[in-house]
Amino acid sequence: MLDSDERRLTRWERRVEWPLTVLAVVFLVVYAWQVLDNRATGGLHLALELVLWAVWLVFALDYVARFTLAVDKRRFFVTHLFDLLTVLLPMIRQLRVLRLITVLKVLNRRFAGKVRQRIGLYAAGVTVLVGLCASLAVLDAERNHPDATITTFGDAAWWTLTTISTVGYGDRYPVTWEGRLVAALLMIGGIALLGVITGTIASWLVDRLSGVEDQVAEAEEATLAELRSVKAELAELRAELRASRHP
Amino acid sequence: MLDSDERRLTRWERRVEWPLTVLAVVFLVVYAWQVLDNRATGGLHLALELVLWAVWLVFALDYVARFTLAVDKRRFFVTHLFDLLTVLLPMIRQLRVLRLITVLKVLNRRFAGKVRQRIGLYAAGVTVLVGLCASLAVLDAERNHPDATITTFGDAAWWTLTTISTVGYGDRYPVTWEGRLVAALLMIGGIALLGVITGTIASWLVDRLSGVEDQVAEAEEATLAELRSVKAELAELRAELRASRHP
Amino acid sequence: MLDSDERRLTRWERRVEWPLTVLAVVFLVVYAWQVLDNRATGGLHLALELVLWAVWLVFALDYVARFTLAVDKRRFFVTHLFDLLTVLLPMIRQLRVLRLITVLKVLNRRFAGKVRQRIGLYAAGVTVLVGLCASLAVLDAERNHPDATITTFGDAAWWTLTTISTVGYGDRYPVTWEGRLVAALLMIGGIALLGVITGTIASWLVDRLSGVEDQVAEAEEATLAELRSVKAELAELRAELRASRHP
Amino acid sequence: MLDSDERRLTRWERRVEWPLTVLAVVFLVVYAWQVLDNRATGGLHLALELVLWAVWLVFALDYVARFTLAVDKRRFFVTHLFDLLTVLLPMIRQLRVLRLITVLKVLNRRFAGKVRQRIGLYAAGVTVLVGLCASLAVLDAERNHPDATITTFGDAAWWTLTTISTVGYGDRYPVTWEGRLVAALLMIGGIALLGVITGTIASWLVDRLSGVEDQVAEAEEATLAELRSVKAELAELRAELRASRHP
Repeated sequence: MLDSDERRLTRWERRVEWPLTVLAVVFLVVYAWQVLDNRATGGLHLALELVLWAVWLVFALDYVARFTLAVDKRRFFVTHLFDLLTVLLPMIRQLRVLRLITVLKVLNRRFAGKVRQRIGLYAAGVTVLVGLCASLAVLDAERNHPDATITTFGDAAWWTLTTISTVGYGDRYPVTWEGRLVAALLMIGGIALLGVITGTIASWLVDRLSGVEDQVAEAEEATLAELRSVKAELAELRAELRASRHP
Repeated sequence: MLDSDERRLTRWERRVEWPLTVLAVVFLVVYAWQVLDNRATGGLHLALELVLWAVWLVFALDYVARFTLAVDKRRFFVTHLFDLLTVLLPMIRQLRVLRLITVLKVLNRRFAGKVRQRIGLYAAGVTVLVGLCASLAVLDAERNHPDATITTFGDAAWWTLTTISTVGYGDRYPVTWEGRLVAALLMIGGIALLGVITGTIASWLVDRLSGVEDQVAEAEEATLAELRSVKAELAELRAELRASRHP
Repeated sequence: MLDSDERRLTRWERRVEWPLTVLAVVFLVVYAWQVLDNRATGGLHLALELVLWAVWLVFALDYVARFTLAVDKRRFFVTHLFDLLTVLLPMIRQLRVLRLITVLKVLNRRFAGKVRQRIGLYAAGVTVLVGLCASLAVLDAERNHPDATITTFGDAAWWTLTTISTVGYGDRYPVTWEGRLVAALLMIGGIALLGVITGTIASWLVDRLSGVEDQVAEAEEATLAELRSVKAELAELRAELRASRHP
Repeated sequence: MLDSDERRLTRWERRVEWPLTVLAVVFLVVYAWQVLDNRATGGLHLALELVLWAVWLVFALDYVARFTLAVDKRRFFVTHLFDLLTVLLPMIRQLRVLRLITVLKVLNRRFAGKVRQRIGLYAAGVTVLVGLCASLAVLDAERNHPDATITTFGDAAWWTLTTISTVGYGDRYPVTWEGRLVAALLMIGGIALLGVITGTIASWLVDRLSGVEDQVAEAEEATLAELRSVKAELAELRAELRASRHP
C-alpha cells in the first residue's frame, strides 16, 4: 500500500519532468524579454507578466500535487521546506527574483543526469545559466534606481563576471536591496558550489580507497579459502596414510 | 591524586557547558539589541551594557575557576593564553568587540560535537554566526564616525558578505581602526577556516590510507598464520611417516 | 588507406610545428610593438598591421590545409570548431584581440610537452605569457577611450595583476566592451586553469590508486598460482602413496 | 678533492648561518625604524641608512664567498642566479625594497627546519613576516607621493591585509611603481605559496600511496617466500617417501 503510494509520487515526477523543463525555458525566455525590452508597451509588458504568473502557478500546483501524493506528509513538508519557500516567497513582488531559483532547479534536475559524467561541461553550463539569471535579475532590480550603476544588460553581465570571479572592481555594484539579494545568492551559490566540488572530489577519492579496501579483503578471502583447501587435502592425505598402516 | 584533580576540571567544564551556552546566546541577543536599537534611551542603553558586563564577568570567573582547578597551572596558563587574552583585552572599551570571540568559542564548543558529521550544515552555521557577529561589530564600531560608509545594519551585512566572498567592491569599507580590527579578524578567520577545511580533507584521506595499510597488514598476518599451520601439518605428517617406517 | 591519410595530417602538423611557433613569436613581438609604440608614423603602423595580417593568413591557411588533409571531415569540423572560430572571428576589427588565443595555443602546443614534467615552471610560464597578452590587448582596446583608466602599458600590467590575483582594487578597470572581453577571457581562463589543475591533481591521485589496485590484483594472482602448484604437488604425492600401497 | 671542496662550501654555510640570521633581524628592525620614524633628524636617518648598507655589504660578501668556495662555478652561477639578482638589483635606489627578499630568505632558511612539522604555525609565521615586510616596503615607497592613499603604517597594514585576503576594496592602493612592485611581489608570492601548499598536500598523499604499494609488495614477497618453503617441505617429504619405498 505504502509502496504503491510512493510509486505514485515517483510516477508523477517522471511524467511532469518534460513539461516542467519546457515551462522553465519558457519562463526564462519571457523573463529575459521583459527585462531586456525597454520599449515594450504597457500591454505587451502585462501580457509577459501574465505568462510569468501562469508558469508560476503551474510550479505551485506541482508542489501541491506532490504534497497530495506524498504518503508521509509531515516528512515531505520538512524535507521540501526550501521548495515551499521558493514557491511562496516570490508572491511578494520584491522577491519575484527568487522564482529563478525554482527555474534553475528544474533545469538542473533535467540535465544533471545527462552530463554529470562530463563534469567540466556540466560545471560550465551551470555557471553560464546562473550567470545569465543573475545578470537579468540584477538588471531588473537596479535599472530604475536613481543611484544605480547597473542600467544596461552589458553592465549587468560585466558586474556578474567581476562578482563570480571575486575580482570585484567596484565600478559596478547593486544599490537596491533586491539587487543585493541577487548578489548574496550569487556569492553564496558560488561558495556553496566550490564546497560541493571539493567535497565531490574528496568523496570520489575515498570511494576509490574503499574499492582498494574491498579488493584487499576479497583477495585475502580467496587466498584463505585456497589455503583451507590445501589443509583439507593434507588432512585427507594423513588419514589415508594412517589407514594404510593400520588396515 | 593528580588524576582525580584533572577529573575535577573536566567535571567543572561539563557542568558549566549548558549555562555558558545560554549566557552566550543572551550576550549575542543583548549585544544585537544594543547595536541595532537606535532609539534606545540612555537608561535602557545602560541596562543592556550592565547585562553585557555581567555576562562578561561570568566568563572571566569561569577562566579563574578552570585555572584554580587545573593541576599543572603553568601548562594551563600557556595552553590557554588565547583564552586569557580574549577575557582581558575586551576590558579596554575599544576592544570590546573581542568579547564576541569568546561567545563564538562557547557556542562552537557546544554544537561542534553535535553536527560535525553533517559537515556542510556545520560550516554553513559557523559562517552565518560569524557573519552576524561581524556585521554587528562593524556597525557598532563604524556608525558614529563622520566618514563612515557603514551606518545601517543592511550596510554592515552587505559589507560582511562582500568581504567573506573576497569580492570587495569597495563601496562600503571600515574607516575606524576598531572596524578594521573586525575586518582583519573576519579575513584571517576566513583564511584560517579554509586552511582547516583543506587540512581536514587531506588528513581524512590519509586516515583512510592508514586504514588500507592496516588492512593489508592484517590480511598478510592471517595468510602467514594459515601458511604456518599448513607447514606444521606437513611437519607432523613427515614425523608420522618416519615413525611408521622405523617403529 | 585511411591510416596513411591520417598519417598525412600528423606529418603535416609535425612539419609546420616549428614555422608556426616562430610565426607566433613574430606575431606577439609585432603586436607588442604596434600597441606600445605611440610615436609610430602612419606608414610604420600600416607595415606592422600588414605583418600581423600576413601571419594571420598563414594561420588561416594552416586550418584549411589541416581540414583538407583530414579524412573524416565532419568529425574534424566539429572537434576543431573552436579553432575555426578563433580564425574567423578576428576578421572583425573589434575582435582582433581574439587572434592572441591562436598565438597562445600554438606556443602552448610547442612547449607544453617540453616542460610539463616541471609543472611549476610550466604554470609560471603560461601565467606570464597570458598576462603579457592580456596587458597588450587591454591597452590596445582601452587607450583611445575618453573615460579610460588604462592608458599606459604600466597601467595595463598593473590591471592584469590585480585581476589575475582577484584582488581587484578598482583603481583601473576596462570601460570599452573590447577591454571587457579581454577581462572576461582572462577571468574565465583563470577559473578554467584552476579547475584543470585541481582535476589534474585529483586524477593523478586516482591513477596512483588504480596502480595500488592493479598491484593487489597481481599479488593475489601470484599467490593463488603458487597455492595451486602446492595443491598439484600434494595431489601427486597422494597418487604416489596410493600407487606404492597397491602396486 | 672535489668532495672536500664541496664540504668547504657546506661548512661555510653552516658557520655563517647564525650571524646572517642576526644580521637579517637587525636589518629588519633598522629598516622598520627608518620607515616608521618620521621625526628622525637627517643625521639619524643617515646613520640608519649606513647600517642598512653595511648589512647589505655582508650579504653581498657572503655571495662572493660562496661563489669562491663552489667547485663547479658555472653550475653555482646558474642555480644561484636569483641570489645574485637579489644582491645586485637593490643597488639601484628605487629597487632597495628587493633587499627584503634576501632578509626573508635568510630568516626562512634558519627557521623552516625548526617548525615545518607544525605546518600551521610555520604558515602563520611566514604570512605575518611577509605581511610586515610588505607593509613597511609599501609605506616607504608611497609616503611621499602627492596622490598616495597609503601614508601611515596603519594604512599600509590595512592595505596589506585587504591584498593578502584578495578582498581589495580599493580604498587604499599603491600609485608609485615601487609600491606596485611590492604589491606584485605580494600577490605573486601569495599565489605561489598556495601552489606550494596544494602541491605539498598532493605529494604527501602520493607518498602515503607509495607506502601502501611498498607494503603490498612486501606482504606479497613474504607470502611467496613462505609458500616456497611449504613447497620445499613437500618435495622433501616426497623424496623421503620414495627413498623408503626403494631402499
